[in-house]
Amino acid sequence: MWVFVVENKTFGNRAFCRQVEGRQQFGDYSQEALQDLIRWRDIWAPALRAALRQIGGLSLKPIIARALQMGNELHNRSNAASSLFANAMAVPMMEAGVPKEALISTLDYLAGHELFFLGLSMASAKATADPARGIKYSTVVTAMARNGTEFGIQVSSLEDEWFAAPAPPVKGLFLPGYSEKDAGLDMGDSAITETVGWGGFVLGGAPGILSLVGGTPEEALSYSREMRQITVTTSPEFRIPALGFEGTAVGIDVRKVVQTNILPVIDTALAHKNPGHPIIGAGLVRPPLECFKKALSRFAEKYGLN
Amino acid sequence: MWVFVVENKTFGNRAFCRQVEGRQQFGDYSQEALQDLIRWRDIWAPALRAALRQIGGLSLKPIIARALQMGNELHNRSNAASSLFANAMAVPMMEAGVPKEALISTLDYLAGHELFFLGLSMASAKATADPARGIKYSTVVTAMARNGTEFGIQVSSLEDEWFAAPAPPVKGLFLPGYSEKDAGLDMGDSAITETVGWGGFVLGGAPGILSLVGGTPEEALSYSREMRQITVTTSPEFRIPALGFEGTAVGIDVRKVVQTNILPVIDTALAHKNPGHPIIGAGLVRPPLECFKKALSRFAEKYGLN
Repeated sequence: MWVFVVENKTFGNRAFCRQVEGRQQFGDYSQEALQDLIRWRDIWAPALRAALRQIGGLSLKPIIARALQMGNELHNRSNAASSLFANAMAVPMMEAGVPKEALISTLDYLAGHELFFLGLSMASAKATADPARGIKYSTVVTAMARNGTEFGIQVSSLEDEWFAAPAPPVKGLFLPGYSEKDAGLDMGDSAITETVGWGGFVLGGAPGILSLVGGTPEEALSYSREMRQITVTTSPEFRIPALGFEGTAVGIDVRKVVQTNILPVIDTALAHKNPGHPIIGAGLVRPPLECFKKALSRFAEKYGLN
Repeated sequence: MWVFVVENKTFGNRAFCRQVEGRQQFGDYSQEALQDLIRWRDIWAPALRAALRQIGGLSLKPIIARALQMGNELHNRSNAASSLFANAMAVPMMEAGVPKEALISTLDYLAGHELFFLGLSMASAKATADPARGIKYSTVVTAMARNGTEFGIQVSSLEDEWFAAPAPPVKGLFLPGYSEKDAGLDMGDSAITETVGWGGFVLGGAPGILSLVGGTPEEALSYSREMRQITVTTSPEFRIPALGFEGTAVGIDVRKVVQTNILPVIDTALAHKNPGHPIIGAGLVRPPLECFKKALSRFAEKYGLN
């Protein structure tokens, strides 16, 4: 399958993502679900590739910074980023000479797909987080991921070791036809957005997402403020108007998590516990404290602090 | 000059707008400022017309509703609406057979022009407000406008009579090279957006605008809540996530304004007091109470309530 390549220009590392479509990626293998993958392969991805080669790549940071100021948290709400991305690709696709039919199909697809940017957001987060790996003495979290059974985190100075605990259930709202009893446990690699301070961390600036995940605007603001207590800094570039243009909280510190008992807040999509279904809902979840305790314990062991 | 025609499909009335460009319309008649009008006449407007005829017109309400949930207040901040509009026009322009060069020029223009939708927002507001004119006994404001000398309002049951008082200065922030001493008094017909409950009325949902007009997110939320005290209802269609998805306050009632002494809050652009300048800043302004007192007095006179 065609993937986007997202490069961290400062460090030279790369991350990748496929298109987000909310069906096959959640386990729905119906003909209808597969149809979008086929069109991605045959029409949309080649058209976008031609455009991206034409302009030598597209800077994602300006889109991300603007979308964060347009009520997106870039995990479950990326409608502004998707719209800006569609704007940015239209002219390059034309200049690259994409045939009219493919051009119309691709622009139609991009303009109507509010979650399109999620893939790019995840790959941007991954490309951002990876250079923070392997820094001696650092207790900053470099990855959070879940597989429906376990929730795991990785920590900078502890290299590639996963610190895992049983995956929690997600508390959220369900799409028509589904309920709590259908939901699998927390799953997916999308929590990389929270790892770099987006998603649940910027919920206060993205209250529009609450219609999908539940909660009040006041709660959303308090989540964003709470996350400052477990992070090492705020972003100088990604600023949230609803928080007085303060930067997003970034760099989860396992020490601060264990000291305060405040866990990262993640807003995430819900998958069915059985295969054959598309996305069934979305909600909020916090990782198990156990992951952070285990990581801190290994840190103490590694650096002889016991 | 080519104009957009915005039709209120329910009542059949129409309003019109030219393109917003922030220079000539503020009094800058330099060659550079005029250049955008020429391109509007020769390239952009014809391309958009071809597309709009191709699809038989574009529904603006869905764009407005979505933009209000993406941090736009549709007066000085319309970046989301502009982005959505650009995407909505891309495919229709292609399908209408707009030549490649004009197509690229127009999409480039639309995708790079964050304030483009303001004209459509104003004409939409005008088309919305006009059917509320001439309703017997109604004390609802149907227009607010300023000419740099006077601020005037019109009231439903009082037909076409203007109730005016001296235009106030705008309290705001200035673009580089300009200061308070350059500013003219409150000016323009853009306050029609506040007349239907957008602009300053939804500032709480559009804190991104505060970098342009000044103030804190808390103040912005309190403005939006305050406006409920002087309006007759809230919109069932335009809902603000930051206010718990409550509808926008709509229908300014001159009786409530005079009873509470709470004046409508307007966020507006600033024009230079002398000709020859583009937009010089933006800020907040409230109309003179005198306008509302005069209108209420005429109302009492007309209906024999004195």
